[in-house]
Amino acid sequence: MEIIQTVQQLQQLQNRFKKLNIGFVPTMGALHDGHISLIKQAREQNDVVVVSIFVNPTQFLEGEDLETYPKKMEADSKICELCNVDYLFAPEISTMYSGDEVLIKAPNIRGYTLEGVKRPGHFDGMLQIVLKLLNLVQPTNAYFGKKDAQQLSLIKLMVDNFFLNVNIVECEIVREEDGLAMSSRNVYLSKDERIDALSISKSLKYAAKQIGSGELDCEVLINSMREIMNKIDIEYVAITNRKFEKIEKIELGNSMILVAAQVGTTRLIDNIWI
Amino acid sequence: MEIIQTVQQLQQLQNRFKKLNIGFVPTMGALHDGHISLIKQAREQNDVVVVSIFVNPTQFLEGEDLETYPKKMEADSKICELCNVDYLFAPEISTMYSGDEVLIKAPNIRGYTLEGVKRPGHFDGMLQIVLKLLNLVQPTNAYFGKKDAQQLSLIKLMVDNFFLNVNIVECEIVREEDGLAMSSRNVYLSKDERIDALSISKSLKYAAKQIGSGELDCEVLINSMREIMNKIDIEYVAITNRKFEKIEKIELGNSMILVAAQVGTTRLIDNIWI
Repeated sequence: MEIIQTVQQLQQLQNRFKKLNIGFVPTMGALHDGHISLIKQAREQNDVVVVSIFVNPTQFLEGEDLETYPKKMEADSKICELCNVDYLFAPEISTMYSGDEVLIKAPNIRGYTLEGVKRPGHFDGMLQIVLKLLNLVQPTNAYFGKKDAQQLSLIKLMVDNFFLNVNIVECEIVREEDGLAMSSRNVYLSKDERIDALSISKSLKYAAKQIGSGELDCEVLINSMREIMNKIDIEYVAITNRKFEKIEKIELGNSMILVAAQVGTTRLIDNIWI
Repeated sequence: MEIIQTVQQLQQLQNRFKKLNIGFVPTMGALHDGHISLIKQAREQNDVVVVSIFVNPTQFLEGEDLETYPKKMEADSKICELCNVDYLFAPEISTMYSGDEVLIKAPNIRGYTLEGVKRPGHFDGMLQIVLKLLNLVQPTNAYFGKKDAQQLSLIKLMVDNFFLNVNIVECEIVREEDGLAMSSRNVYLSKDERIDALSISKSLKYAAKQIGSGELDCEVLINSMREIMNKIDIEYVAITNRKFEKIEKIELGNSMILVAAQVGTTRLIDNIWI
């Protein structure tokens, strides 16, 4: 008999039995170039690629756009085909949820700041569906974009906390030519709103430039960003460390600048990792 | 590309890659004949047997017996050795928990009745550690006793909800010769308390006999059980269906009688499945 006291020993035992690398890209569909970059990365790094499309009801709050969230199954399926996806998992809601369920709760500190304040319960539902999907697909690598920075951080935390045997791959934000971060919700924007929305990425770029010139004071950076975004309805501009704790001075390699704003009726988020 | 819409299809894919059957018996140590029967069953039904010993702090409430819970690592290790266990997983608390964690919440309905009322938060912590252990060990079969009936039911629900690729094996309650259900907490009982504690299993046996004679009225059954247990401090005597919803009339094959009681300072539970 062997006595095991570390996680590493246990996982080594399991990896002995694994044969193929599975890459997994979970999405809510309405695939855009951001998703495609994730899928391509998964394709390059794995033997088998699984994409899921599921608009998860439990991560939408009352009054959010669950009903109107863009659905493009035919086009999405075609995109996956063209990207050489092996399996597209597109379950019904009743496949993923039953009645009275065991629930997930975002962590007390990191889960209730920024998006966690603005969208209470959103992360609980997001973590719930990601846990379900990771358990179902059992991927070697799972791909998530940095645009949903807090989501990505909480998923990594959940993977650590629950000892999920998966590698979370952090993928760079993909932007339109003019700088707007790709989002399935961009289709909601009118022509004028589209122009106003650009101020988000512009403000982030400007902050990065200022930091490059040696400005590390977060208050100064945030004020100049707010000025650039003066035409849109800012929800928050925050500068934090990688644990989403607010900081006063930029720590290079450990900081993030995060923005959420309403442009017309569309809620957009963007960020930059410093 | 293959489009998958059901859980069964996905799990079939995964099972292709599995080679060995792993049987898992999670325990809090202080192993008794009840545990040994689980381990023997695991040994018979699997290629590899893993036992874990971990006194999980998050399932103990403030004021419960976390500090005094019996610890017998040396004897336990010997028992496992004698039962031909392959791996004994005995982690430190710091191996299983870090700081601010993603949390589990017992389901709203089934999680907040009986034990869930008497020990609020207990099931959250229990499900949290079981999820961690199942993910770490990734067993084919995991063995749980019917004594903790509500625990067993919630674990099965969690396995369904989170699509854990494991078979939960329900194991019969093992009793002392005089009928007392085996428990690591029985060592707390004085000689006199030990005698009083017998009224719990006696009352359950009596109820089963009454049911055998055609008495299906739950109120009548509960009243006669309470009479038998008149020397101990009953927390609850409940008759429910397998979803822990109280019932008024026994449904054969779908009912449970559950008791929790304090005998001296020791809290005991027992049950019978009808």
